[in-house]
Amino acid sequence: MTAPPTVVIVGGGFGGLNAARALRRAPVTVILLDRNNYHLFQPLLYQVATAGLEPEEIARPVRAILRRQKNFDFRLVEVRGVDFAQRRLDTSAGPIAYDYLVLSHGSETNYFGLESMRQHGLGLKDIPDAVHIRNHVLTCFEQAMLEPDPEQRRARLTFIVVGGGPTGVEMAGALSELIRLVLVKDYPRLNIKDVRILLLEATDKILAALPERLREAAVTTLWRKWIEVRFNAVVADYDGERVRLKSGEVIPARTVIWAAGVQAAELNRRLGLEARAGRQGRIPIEPTLQLPGHPEVYMIGDAAYLEENAGGAGGAGGAPLPMVAPVAIQMGKHAALNIRNAVRGQPLVPFRYRDQGTLATIGRNAAVCNVYGVQARGFLAWVMWLGIHIVQLIGFRNKLFVLLNWAWDYFFYERAARLITRD
Amino acid sequence: MTAPPTVVIVGGGFGGLNAARALRRAPVTVILLDRNNYHLFQPLLYQVATAGLEPEEIARPVRAILRRQKNFDFRLVEVRGVDFAQRRLDTSAGPIAYDYLVLSHGSETNYFGLESMRQHGLGLKDIPDAVHIRNHVLTCFEQAMLEPDPEQRRARLTFIVVGGGPTGVEMAGALSELIRLVLVKDYPRLNIKDVRILLLEATDKILAALPERLREAAVTTLWRKWIEVRFNAVVADYDGERVRLKSGEVIPARTVIWAAGVQAAELNRRLGLEARAGRQGRIPIEPTLQLPGHPEVYMIGDAAYLEENAGGAGGAGGAPLPMVAPVAIQMGKHAALNIRNAVRGQPLVPFRYRDQGTLATIGRNAAVCNVYGVQARGFLAWVMWLGIHIVQLIGFRNKLFVLLNWAWDYFFYERAARLITRD
Repeated sequence: MTAPPTVVIVGGGFGGLNAARALRRAPVTVILLDRNNYHLFQPLLYQVATAGLEPEEIARPVRAILRRQKNFDFRLVEVRGVDFAQRRLDTSAGPIAYDYLVLSHGSETNYFGLESMRQHGLGLKDIPDAVHIRNHVLTCFEQAMLEPDPEQRRARLTFIVVGGGPTGVEMAGALSELIRLVLVKDYPRLNIKDVRILLLEATDKILAALPERLREAAVTTLWRKWIEVRFNAVVADYDGERVRLKSGEVIPARTVIWAAGVQAAELNRRLGLEARAGRQGRIPIEPTLQLPGHPEVYMIGDAAYLEENAGGAGGAGGAPLPMVAPVAIQMGKHAALNIRNAVRGQPLVPFRYRDQGTLATIGRNAAVCNVYGVQARGFLAWVMWLGIHIVQLIGFRNKLFVLLNWAWDYFFYERAARLITRD
Repeated sequence: MTAPPTVVIVGGGFGGLNAARALRRAPVTVILLDRNNYHLFQPLLYQVATAGLEPEEIARPVRAILRRQKNFDFRLVEVRGVDFAQRRLDTSAGPIAYDYLVLSHGSETNYFGLESMRQHGLGLKDIPDAVHIRNHVLTCFEQAMLEPDPEQRRARLTFIVVGGGPTGVEMAGALSELIRLVLVKDYPRLNIKDVRILLLEATDKILAALPERLREAAVTTLWRKWIEVRFNAVVADYDGERVRLKSGEVIPARTVIWAAGVQAAELNRRLGLEARAGRQGRIPIEPTLQLPGHPEVYMIGDAAYLEENAGGAGGAGGAPLPMVAPVAIQMGKHAALNIRNAVRGQPLVPFRYRDQGTLATIGRNAAVCNVYGVQARGFLAWVMWLGIHIVQLIGFRNKLFVLLNWAWDYFFYERAARLITRD
């Protein structure tokens, strides 16, 4: 009897985790590699950044999630490169050989070459990012209380969110509620008129994936929460004190949260893979999710480029698949399916994305959604948003604690995690 | 009408917080200064270090705690010095004037001049310390899984706790349960025989404040949890890889948690105050809690030195008051009482400490306690420990979440917070 083939998965995000799970009964050994020991539920990261949830509630150790899977092992390592010819990864803990490889290393914040923003802006991709935003926002309030100069004080109380996608919209809404419902109680000497929250969108629409009626509803809801929604506002520069827009407008602000976009993780470059311009650093893959020229290597999620119903490698298909969790989840399961087929010597199946829709919450009782063809807004959409997120969270304990936190905050207008933690 | 006198309190620990609260109806303005924006319930810090609780559950923002107190204000600043003559503090946000001053800046880890331990050992005094220990311990397990050399692997799985006081005992017990009840499930390839936990005590007894019968029970309980309790074991040196004892014994270990003692915070020196040797850097105070020569300055908690039923300033009293939370709490309330008396022109009252006893938990169903004259051990003591800690935790939300976490871990043999977070 020969040893079962080894499937190495790089990255424990939505793609990698689902690939590992879907291989639980396959006659293979699964090894998942990640720099972090946990899987992060990124869609709720903005709530950690706005002191609503604790990091531990939206993350779970990979080992705990897959504890019962007999053919699974985890290794906390950093991947440095790959030797496709020798089927071997180069990692911080030495070489790791594979028979099949699943590359699901995801994405990072895309600053579109704006070096000043990379330096002074606040990204939101991982737990340290979120905790950093939380610490920064709360520190701005503390410093504003100590600031005698009114202009300086207002700059500390001006919060700019860049990017009108779901992350930016949810971030702005949560920030407004944190300040206007909770922090006003903590800071009785605060003049709320000194506070500004801006949402800057480079195009002329926010939540572009939604139909117009819902987009307009979202703008109205944001505006009612005292958020200045600005269209066609393109950031040109930020020195940590002032944002300069392409229009020449200058806004003094000590906080700029950059939610304008993502690009494939830098590992793509280190693996020696080449992306084409305009694809956020993503590598074109076959409709079977294989890396062209490397049938034993699968690439999924934000790192990969595929067009809807594509005929060939990044070929003449429809629109590019978006860099979102549902794509990664479905690709993870599909890569596992094709690996099972390959092991059994059966033909591989091309990937087809089932779009489940979009939804975004803007705060208490307010959301917009377009899910499985159902369009909703307001309270109904908000309840749907709650339900869908609770169901998707991994682990009953996390579900319970998140739900309890939400209930508490909802009824008492509170936020649990208002600590400024020093490193 | 003249402005009410200003009481400035330095430090939001048990002493400062209780002083502020006890002044809520006094005709004074209270300003509390702290480097952190939260009050920390230190007695449960070891549970954060052993992944049982999340930092947010044992800390609460000072502003949230005292939100309803009209005469209260908080400032997030670092105190750098004091001008007693001008009644003015020098802080990171400029000078702050006071009419009355309460110094309650607490203590820090005491390495007894052991420079190598300060560098390589792990202290446990604040949230970053606790999170660092958690990350370190979990990383040791991940690295042990990757380590081919058996001696190196065992060194990564050897955990030494130094100090047989309540902190060291509770830390060792919680660490043993984390490893033997929870991590064994996460690491099915772990050989539990590679794991060692040692508790090193420099004298010949642990939990010295307890009667002998309970001390012996504690040793037995620790031993049954596979903890090597070592008496008269004095650490001479630690280079990060090997602990050397005074006896010449050398123990390879990548983790040394230093719970051997505390000393008054370094601020004592910066304030120009002088301590005598053998008093852990504490400053002698009057029985009224005033700083000798400065009747408008009160000093309380771990920073201050007072003897039981003292007749004069650090004078011919009984044993020195211990550096523990109950002393700080009672002193905080008492300083507030004396300030109220001083404002009204009434005589000040000397402080008398009411000793409530000692208790320490060693894990599931196991504790020892000697509280209000009641001696107990085992399950009963453990239930008392639970009840007393839940009652003392500030805030109903924290109580609820800690209780839920404990219940979950108790029934499911789990730990919520097993994340390795990077800075």
